[in-house]
Amino acid sequence: MMSYQAPYKDMQWLVEQAYQTQQLGNLESLQDFDLDLANAIIDEASKFASGVLAPLNMVGDEEGCTFSDGQVTTPTGWKDAYAQFRDSGWIGLALPEEYGGQGLPKYIAQPVNEMWLSSNLAFVMFAALAQGGSEILLKFGSDELKARYLTQIVTGEWTVAMALTEPNAGSDLGALTTKAIPQADGTYQIKGQKIYITYGEHDMAENIVHLVLARTPDAPAGSRGLSLFAVPKYRVNEDGSCGEFNDIRCTGIEHKTGLHGSPTCSISYGDNDNCVGELIGNLNQGLMAMFVLMNEARLSCGMQGVGLSELAFQKALQYSKERVQGARADGQRVAILEHPDVKRMLLNLRSESFALRSLGYQIAALIDVSEQSDDAEAVKAAEKRIALLTPIFKGFATEQANELAGDAVQVFGGMGFVEETGIAQVMRDARITTIYEGTTGIQAKDLLHRKIRVDQGRCISELMADIRDVVEKSPDSVVNQRLGQALNQLAHVLDSTILNPSAELAQLDAVAVPFLNALGGICCAWQLVELAQRAQVSKAEDEVFFGNVVALAEFYSAYKLPQAQAALTTVIDEQNGVGNYEF
Amino acid sequence: MMSYQAPYKDMQWLVEQAYQTQQLGNLESLQDFDLDLANAIIDEASKFASGVLAPLNMVGDEEGCTFSDGQVTTPTGWKDAYAQFRDSGWIGLALPEEYGGQGLPKYIAQPVNEMWLSSNLAFVMFAALAQGGSEILLKFGSDELKARYLTQIVTGEWTVAMALTEPNAGSDLGALTTKAIPQADGTYQIKGQKIYITYGEHDMAENIVHLVLARTPDAPAGSRGLSLFAVPKYRVNEDGSCGEFNDIRCTGIEHKTGLHGSPTCSISYGDNDNCVGELIGNLNQGLMAMFVLMNEARLSCGMQGVGLSELAFQKALQYSKERVQGARADGQRVAILEHPDVKRMLLNLRSESFALRSLGYQIAALIDVSEQSDDAEAVKAAEKRIALLTPIFKGFATEQANELAGDAVQVFGGMGFVEETGIAQVMRDARITTIYEGTTGIQAKDLLHRKIRVDQGRCISELMADIRDVVEKSPDSVVNQRLGQALNQLAHVLDSTILNPSAELAQLDAVAVPFLNALGGICCAWQLVELAQRAQVSKAEDEVFFGNVVALAEFYSAYKLPQAQAALTTVIDEQNGVGNYEF
Repeated sequence: MMSYQAPYKDMQWLVEQAYQTQQLGNLESLQDFDLDLANAIIDEASKFASGVLAPLNMVGDEEGCTFSDGQVTTPTGWKDAYAQFRDSGWIGLALPEEYGGQGLPKYIAQPVNEMWLSSNLAFVMFAALAQGGSEILLKFGSDELKARYLTQIVTGEWTVAMALTEPNAGSDLGALTTKAIPQADGTYQIKGQKIYITYGEHDMAENIVHLVLARTPDAPAGSRGLSLFAVPKYRVNEDGSCGEFNDIRCTGIEHKTGLHGSPTCSISYGDNDNCVGELIGNLNQGLMAMFVLMNEARLSCGMQGVGLSELAFQKALQYSKERVQGARADGQRVAILEHPDVKRMLLNLRSESFALRSLGYQIAALIDVSEQSDDAEAVKAAEKRIALLTPIFKGFATEQANELAGDAVQVFGGMGFVEETGIAQVMRDARITTIYEGTTGIQAKDLLHRKIRVDQGRCISELMADIRDVVEKSPDSVVNQRLGQALNQLAHVLDSTILNPSAELAQLDAVAVPFLNALGGICCAWQLVELAQRAQVSKAEDEVFFGNVVALAEFYSAYKLPQAQAALTTVIDEQNGVGNYEF
Repeated sequence: MMSYQAPYKDMQWLVEQAYQTQQLGNLESLQDFDLDLANAIIDEASKFASGVLAPLNMVGDEEGCTFSDGQVTTPTGWKDAYAQFRDSGWIGLALPEEYGGQGLPKYIAQPVNEMWLSSNLAFVMFAALAQGGSEILLKFGSDELKARYLTQIVTGEWTVAMALTEPNAGSDLGALTTKAIPQADGTYQIKGQKIYITYGEHDMAENIVHLVLARTPDAPAGSRGLSLFAVPKYRVNEDGSCGEFNDIRCTGIEHKTGLHGSPTCSISYGDNDNCVGELIGNLNQGLMAMFVLMNEARLSCGMQGVGLSELAFQKALQYSKERVQGARADGQRVAILEHPDVKRMLLNLRSESFALRSLGYQIAALIDVSEQSDDAEAVKAAEKRIALLTPIFKGFATEQANELAGDAVQVFGGMGFVEETGIAQVMRDARITTIYEGTTGIQAKDLLHRKIRVDQGRCISELMADIRDVVEKSPDSVVNQRLGQALNQLAHVLDSTILNPSAELAQLDAVAVPFLNALGGICCAWQLVELAQRAQVSKAEDEVFFGNVVALAEFYSAYKLPQAQAALTTVIDEQNGVGNYEF
């Protein structure tokens, strides 16, 4: 059984490209955080990922979590791995030193995150929750709340759980009904049922800080009446220790098709009217706080797509080297890696995960610009670009992860369908990534309306101009020409349909996902074309690695970019095709 | 929880279209088997599918089969359902009356098969084995073998198991090593290990007739040295009753990601050198016999794609009508079926399963022509067309079933990831269909080489001419024009690449799957365009049903056909894209 190995060379080179593209070396505050440091940390993390997390991935799938009498027991080894993860300081990697974190920039944290996600996604879901929860408290929490919770969260003493969804309110947060009743002491009594709470209950940490979306009695209807509350499992004493149980009861965990090791809890708050929460930020601005978390979570979810695709690729590649089947013309039996159709599937995995990794690292570097630059215009430009790329990256990386995991199973043949090879687990685990943190449909609407139509296409035009610049650096290259054609087609689609003021909303929404997929494919082709140009320059340093980068761009251009263009054709061709059928 | 309901109206109408297109009414031997009979049988089968099989589908998934000490126990209710299935005569539906079957034509059996596959694929896998095993015995078996086995198989007293694969020989049958040692009495001693044997051991029938591919001591190497043997679990006494145990030991069952209710067995033959087999047909012609079964199995596997897609569609549609989420502009909350993106996914499911159902029924009617017609030319034309369509149907229907099951999960959102809704099971069950009975890669090579290049494209040109005829019946229709463009592109691809004598084999094999997918999409568009033309004629009879058929053709043309065309672009653009990367 192969174990995950961090794609060290990819990571090193792509981190360097992101660093240079976004000119992070110019940022004053990042002077101490250079590429050498990045490489040292990638190296250290890769040992932890391969040595501690990866071996537990299948254990988690096979055992799953167990629920009994309100308690959740995590799989064998989980608790110990958590302690190691916490004690190594990984949770606070990109969180402020003031609260016990390491304060590293995002561009360094991103490859580290990728390793966690590849090696054991189900396990490591608490890390993104700690990151997101901390950022909410940093941005919206009172000093008192920060003092009470932040150090404990950043150091991993306590974990964070996000309680949003209710049985009748999934994507539609406006329909939430959980109540928060103000008390004389300024706290709130929380009462309601929440579902789908990742690590809402578990046995790995002393306390769990639930961030609960709820509604005060006089709040307006809909999503504008939601407030966010910090609701710890155990109340916090004056001295910071855990006190009284806070009437938070886990009522069950889901029996899921994947991510068995990560408990997805149903939680009942305040069954005995004794669940105390504290308001985070202002009343009725819970959604604003949630958006901080959501954007963070969407990018992290896109990285899950990268991480799972990489894992699927590694497993499929290794199997294809070992599995002998079929023969050459001379009768010599061969490993299936020699079959062109197997190569096609492996290159689908390899080119897409490489391109998406590059995109994910560029986004992380953009976040560093937005957070660290002194240049207000650069900050604004970075923020706009991140906002545009977030739904594309989240939607496309996760859709691709599902397709690619399927390809990896296919490489395994019949062995892909039996669980012992572990590849079916990747497929099952990936299945949720296009759903949680906003379905692909929701990402696509966000992209189409809030990121493109609202600003009359300015931001996407800037992106297209950047891609055009890359294309025109090698105008004679066939690969570049194809990307140029796709850009022309995209410009036409924007003009005729997406930005057309008289476009029918229902028709636009029907093609929103094809449109997102088209942009995803074009962005990945852009990454590969640009990387291939740089690889040409560096080729002498490492013929195989850089030659392969060029080959990936060629492959993508022939096998994947046409699919993006087909999706653009759909946008144009849609003539109320979904509206003419009577269900 | 919804239960499967046979799509009665679809089936009735599409059976009628296949009957008319293939002019089955002209066949003398089918005079007693008309559309009225077809409808009566579809009706009867639909009750069995909904009433008996569908309710056991999730039971089978949850319980799975259990293995202990060589014995396999099927899930609760399986044994009883088998007895009902057998006693109702469903197993021999399309097998000769002489052996206890009902002798129905294939065009009637096909919708019935589809219902079994939708309602409980894991359960019903024995039925295709009985069908295929019987056809092998009918075609290659001696009178003695026929007398010994056929009635028992056709009536379902005994089941059939196919023992092909060995641990080191999956797709590569030439590498099989199981031995068959000739004995003085004309029988053979069988010895070897086989894996992936569906229903190789179970508790539902009195005896199991294993059809085992093995190699005699002097046989030539490779696939030309394989012979096929009938190897019963219990030897058959003179009076036809079951006798001595035949030294066939089940050594385990696979822990699979789907089809839990169907035992996939590892079997050891002749551990004690006491496993007797009888040769079927001639020595070293085992592969020829297997091909009879294989073609049968491939078409049946394509129908699995149809059946699972239909099931996924029904579940997703029902959920989308019940699940309220989001609101209209006036604040009225709506079922998610009203969201255009959900409609898009449902129509992806609906249009593809409808088109593939039509294609599957047309193929069944072609088989009737090939088996029943007195016109030698018509028989030959039907055989050629079936041979061409088989890899397309098998490959494309199963690839689509995987994509569509994914879409159905997506419609369910978070509920799709929890097992209680049953939709994740469809996704898991579907996963094997692109692998067994020849992977999509193998179908694609068969299509490209043996079905197209070997006859210099004659057969595919005839198919394209038939499609062109349909297109030109309504030359002004935009939908028809688009299909015409796809045909032009296909002609160019054949000319420039697929049939180009100087094409590199490795490059062709790299694009074989995209090419198969392109043909699959074009064939489905063809079915829908032709059906839409007929629907226009019948529209007044049922505005909704026939209006919807037209809408499906429109949807397919805008959303799916561009993907087929993108795959053709890939075939053209491939410039050794898989050969330039060094793994």
